[in-house]
Amino acid sequence: MTAVMRAVMKIAAGPGLSLVDAPVPEPGPGEALVRISTASVCGTDTLIYDWAPWAEERIHPPRIIGHEFAGVVAALGPGVSSIQIGARVSAESHFFCGRCYQCRTGNQDVCRTVRIMGVDAEGCFADYVVVPAVNLWANHPDIPDHIATLQEPMGNALDTVLAEDVAGKRVLITGAGPIGLMCAAVARACGSTRIIVSDPDEYRLDLAQKMGADVVINPHVTPISGPVLAATAGDGVDVLLEISGSAKALSDALPLVTPGGRVSLLGIFKGPVPIDINNLITFRRIRVYGITGRKVFRTWTTVSRLLASRRIDLSPLVTHELPIEEFEKGFGLMRSGRCGKVVFRL
Amino acid sequence: MTAVMRAVMKIAAGPGLSLVDAPVPEPGPGEALVRISTASVCGTDTLIYDWAPWAEERIHPPRIIGHEFAGVVAALGPGVSSIQIGARVSAESHFFCGRCYQCRTGNQDVCRTVRIMGVDAEGCFADYVVVPAVNLWANHPDIPDHIATLQEPMGNALDTVLAEDVAGKRVLITGAGPIGLMCAAVARACGSTRIIVSDPDEYRLDLAQKMGADVVINPHVTPISGPVLAATAGDGVDVLLEISGSAKALSDALPLVTPGGRVSLLGIFKGPVPIDINNLITFRRIRVYGITGRKVFRTWTTVSRLLASRRIDLSPLVTHELPIEEFEKGFGLMRSGRCGKVVFRL
Amino acid sequence: MTAVMRAVMKIAAGPGLSLVDAPVPEPGPGEALVRISTASVCGTDTLIYDWAPWAEERIHPPRIIGHEFAGVVAALGPGVSSIQIGARVSAESHFFCGRCYQCRTGNQDVCRTVRIMGVDAEGCFADYVVVPAVNLWANHPDIPDHIATLQEPMGNALDTVLAEDVAGKRVLITGAGPIGLMCAAVARACGSTRIIVSDPDEYRLDLAQKMGADVVINPHVTPISGPVLAATAGDGVDVLLEISGSAKALSDALPLVTPGGRVSLLGIFKGPVPIDINNLITFRRIRVYGITGRKVFRTWTTVSRLLASRRIDLSPLVTHELPIEEFEKGFGLMRSGRCGKVVFRL
Amino acid sequence: MTAVMRAVMKIAAGPGLSLVDAPVPEPGPGEALVRISTASVCGTDTLIYDWAPWAEERIHPPRIIGHEFAGVVAALGPGVSSIQIGARVSAESHFFCGRCYQCRTGNQDVCRTVRIMGVDAEGCFADYVVVPAVNLWANHPDIPDHIATLQEPMGNALDTVLAEDVAGKRVLITGAGPIGLMCAAVARACGSTRIIVSDPDEYRLDLAQKMGADVVINPHVTPISGPVLAATAGDGVDVLLEISGSAKALSDALPLVTPGGRVSLLGIFKGPVPIDINNLITFRRIRVYGITGRKVFRTWTTVSRLLASRRIDLSPLVTHELPIEEFEKGFGLMRSGRCGKVVFRL
Repeated sequence: MTAVMRAVMKIAAGPGLSLVDAPVPEPGPGEALVRISTASVCGTDTLIYDWAPWAEERIHPPRIIGHEFAGVVAALGPGVSSIQIGARVSAESHFFCGRCYQCRTGNQDVCRTVRIMGVDAEGCFADYVVVPAVNLWANHPDIPDHIATLQEPMGNALDTVLAEDVAGKRVLITGAGPIGLMCAAVARACGSTRIIVSDPDEYRLDLAQKMGADVVINPHVTPISGPVLAATAGDGVDVLLEISGSAKALSDALPLVTPGGRVSLLGIFKGPVPIDINNLITFRRIRVYGITGRKVFRTWTTVSRLLASRRIDLSPLVTHELPIEEFEKGFGLMRSGRCGKVVFRL
Repeated sequence: MTAVMRAVMKIAAGPGLSLVDAPVPEPGPGEALVRISTASVCGTDTLIYDWAPWAEERIHPPRIIGHEFAGVVAALGPGVSSIQIGARVSAESHFFCGRCYQCRTGNQDVCRTVRIMGVDAEGCFADYVVVPAVNLWANHPDIPDHIATLQEPMGNALDTVLAEDVAGKRVLITGAGPIGLMCAAVARACGSTRIIVSDPDEYRLDLAQKMGADVVINPHVTPISGPVLAATAGDGVDVLLEISGSAKALSDALPLVTPGGRVSLLGIFKGPVPIDINNLITFRRIRVYGITGRKVFRTWTTVSRLLASRRIDLSPLVTHELPIEEFEKGFGLMRSGRCGKVVFRL
Repeated sequence: MTAVMRAVMKIAAGPGLSLVDAPVPEPGPGEALVRISTASVCGTDTLIYDWAPWAEERIHPPRIIGHEFAGVVAALGPGVSSIQIGARVSAESHFFCGRCYQCRTGNQDVCRTVRIMGVDAEGCFADYVVVPAVNLWANHPDIPDHIATLQEPMGNALDTVLAEDVAGKRVLITGAGPIGLMCAAVARACGSTRIIVSDPDEYRLDLAQKMGADVVINPHVTPISGPVLAATAGDGVDVLLEISGSAKALSDALPLVTPGGRVSLLGIFKGPVPIDINNLITFRRIRVYGITGRKVFRTWTTVSRLLASRRIDLSPLVTHELPIEEFEKGFGLMRSGRCGKVVFRL
Repeated sequence: MTAVMRAVMKIAAGPGLSLVDAPVPEPGPGEALVRISTASVCGTDTLIYDWAPWAEERIHPPRIIGHEFAGVVAALGPGVSSIQIGARVSAESHFFCGRCYQCRTGNQDVCRTVRIMGVDAEGCFADYVVVPAVNLWANHPDIPDHIATLQEPMGNALDTVLAEDVAGKRVLITGAGPIGLMCAAVARACGSTRIIVSDPDEYRLDLAQKMGADVVINPHVTPISGPVLAATAGDGVDVLLEISGSAKALSDALPLVTPGGRVSLLGIFKGPVPIDINNLITFRRIRVYGITGRKVFRTWTTVSRLLASRRIDLSPLVTHELPIEEFEKGFGLMRSGRCGKVVFRL
């Protein structure tokens, strides 16, 4: 298997990505080779493209990027019996060690030596990718590939929403990028009775309504406190899901969480954020959950079922499907904000 | 206020009920008088009508029966400032002492000296009822009275379903009486991805589909194990909700709960039930929740929001609305099983 | 009852307190008059003494201060039947409305219109205090008054420690004031297997060891990271309890929480605290609990039982017992840091 | 490695066991060979010895029995890098498949195709045993081998006690065999404030007091209801831990669980048990947890820490240490009930 494949690669330190020919990798012991059919773009990929400070520190070129995909098992390394060649699969993108304290106690998502596909290991914006067999997820026959590739980010959204039960809860989501939009869909499917989404982009507020939001707010037009209090009988929300990574969004939203309420934090901030802990957390007895990764494989199980049963329909979110050759166009769309999920075909 | 009102009363030990004239009661300290607009029939009411052994032991005639209602506050006893005359209300039917260990630790639903409206205290199948003001629930303006009266039993259904989170869970409901049907609606609204309902009555299986069931089974026609395993990829269900009170339904269903799964028990059985604890509970690490009453007022809050937001629509469940004068017809319908909820107008 | 009593009062805006004669208050409807035998000093009381910015904003003199006590019911207002004259009692110091969203859903500790004894209502550093009867807690016969008065602050410690189970968990407590010391005792009694306490005061580190700490650290002498990692096999702690209100303590301690771990925040900070949310909360999937007040009366139940059973012995913590006339000495001790709890006798 | 070793074996269907020479096994891929230093006897082993109906159905001779041990890694099969030769280890005795729904969602203890050491695979009452490397647990240096071998059964006790938090809870343990005694120790270490143990054997009631029981009851002498109610202010217990497998113990104890309380079931019953579900489970809103196996490796982590920190001292429980040659004596002691744990030296 010395064939050549297409791959979107960071070939050297600095902005930009290149579509190159690369050797098809070979699976080692415990690994599988997957033929990619579909891959989708995450905000992390754009940080790598742009060579943001985080990327500069973390990425060692050359590196094939991408960590959301659907495909078919093409070959198996030695000792793999848990999956068959030909199986339709996606994969947990966090490669965990299985031995550290976290891995041994069911917290593989925060493995101490985690390696992330497309970041610390070769990624899936390519015809083939090698992943540990233990990371593979067999895709449900009722979930087509352009939706199956979204299971990975939807897992983040799911854990964000369901850090605690949302049945009968009033939820504010700050940030309507793809994860925020998926949060709206999950909250809607799981019993939240009032879903409020704030984002400065009208295009995405429209998508938010399609995904289940009851109330949308453009904070550049209207301060969020008025509509939020109006939509919650003056109580504020039971649940805040912070997806934007905007310190201002967080500081505007925290006072609107009702005492005894809950906050999930997924958004990535530009730096340390000053928090009035006394008045916004302690005296209100607020619970705050940092969210990263996905629970292996409880989160995947729930995501797959919500999609396969069509309790959640992510179709409206897939606004653009492009051949991998048009990857530059895809990254441009991501930068513009005038898209939901951008999906590459391979 | 020595006026006379209509009341459906158990006037003496033995089967049957009577529509009588009774004095309008007066609210004492801490109590409120409610003008009933709508009341609904519970299975418990039919046990009282039929003078079942439970009723014979518990009920001391004369007793006005009924414990599900919607109405308007008509008068207030001394010291009540928590509600206003004219407010649209329903009420928690369990009158709790507020002083026992259970009440002091947030478990008022299992108060040691609980008195139940229409059982241990005068009920609401009458023009007026007196209730402790602390039991009143202000009805949401978007919930009409014929739905608001269903909040009390829907609270039972809600606690049955949500004893644990159901998002992404596969649920089997044994028994499609009104509570079972409400369970289907709650499970659907709160993220269950596979809802299976079994009941020997085809009329009620039809209703179950209207309320959200994905799969319905008549166990008199088909043993449930085949369809349940087919609908759950052979794993069995994550959640069993036993509403029927049938020992056979329970013994048929327990083996279909997947190891590590959960059971809620609401149905009332005819006597002790033999359980193969080793194989069905212990070795499978099953969790079992007995469910009674409602959490005051967390359950009511969630119920009200699910109804007001129309995430759940109980209209299809209200199959019959009758003037109180036709109470005999209502009880006949209940006995026939060819009804959902029977609602009386006052 | 126009008698006169001793009372420690803030008589006017500005630093200091005065021991004055005040009229014995009369209990209104639903209230009880308590004859105080013992009262204890909280950090909040010293803020009021010193006329700190918080006090200046919140306190409206004249005001009798104090909110931790034990005593005996001396008289009952109209309509009180839940307690008897002569009963030994302490009291939940947060007077809650019982009607707001929080109160109706079991979160009275964060009542929207809470009034705090000795802050918003007259306090207990006096021969008598009036409290709502619903706030009274009947003291267990095996708990003497100089310990019973500590139930209120121990409730804060309990909720801080037990925001999640600590059995088998490694715990870091930053701050060894009375609440921090009680946290050590609770963690020890409830199964924590490694209790690390940091504080710059050697007197209090000695007390920490008496209360159950396995490891004590003076951060002015040794940076905490070395001893904490050494005591946790390099993993860091599972649980951080921040009691000091020091932004530096928090920023030193957060990186030592193992990924997937938990933080409880009780300490009051001087202002907004900059937090590296990405690296310390989100990417590590940390859960943060703000803690205030006590759960009515679940927290009290647990506190009372831990003390009555002597699973926890708070005697070493009561370093000073003084007659109320020596209140100035008590506040001086509090200021010096060379004390555990200071208890006044009345 | 064609050496010969000692092994306690069921050589043919029928009662009894034999000490035989057997070939030292070789570890396959992913497996490790452990040199046993210490092994301990479980009630399951006595069922196999006695050829009880369960054993007759499950065991296929010849079979080396035993599943609780401590030892040292002696050799590694291909592909094992997670542990080193020479490491002191014990092992999770449930060999799980890692692929079924249960294994993939963190419930390996109820793996659908679980194989148990000494039951479905060769056991550890021998000089050597082969186990999957993923099942190995590195023993803490502060836990000697005669205690380390108890980690497996203590894991059962831990999960039984800690199915929910016990801080401040009143606990009744029915059955004072080794698991029941360990339950007392765990409850004591984790904050239970009243520990009541019932057993008809006075020898074991004495041990129960040594392990932390506050109250012991011989139900053949005194019906348990009197002492239980006396020890719980008439409320009944918050928690029932049923370890005896006696239907009478369960039926006597269930009515003593306070409404809203919790039950854990570990004991193995002789057959189906009739339960008055209505009055004992449903109307009291009781939660019931079936307990089996251990959570891999959360339970092991907590057990190890409680022992290494000496928060729990199991020494009094190890009443007999015998060379493996005296295995018949060990089984005789187990049958007599006049022992705690019987430990074999190899």
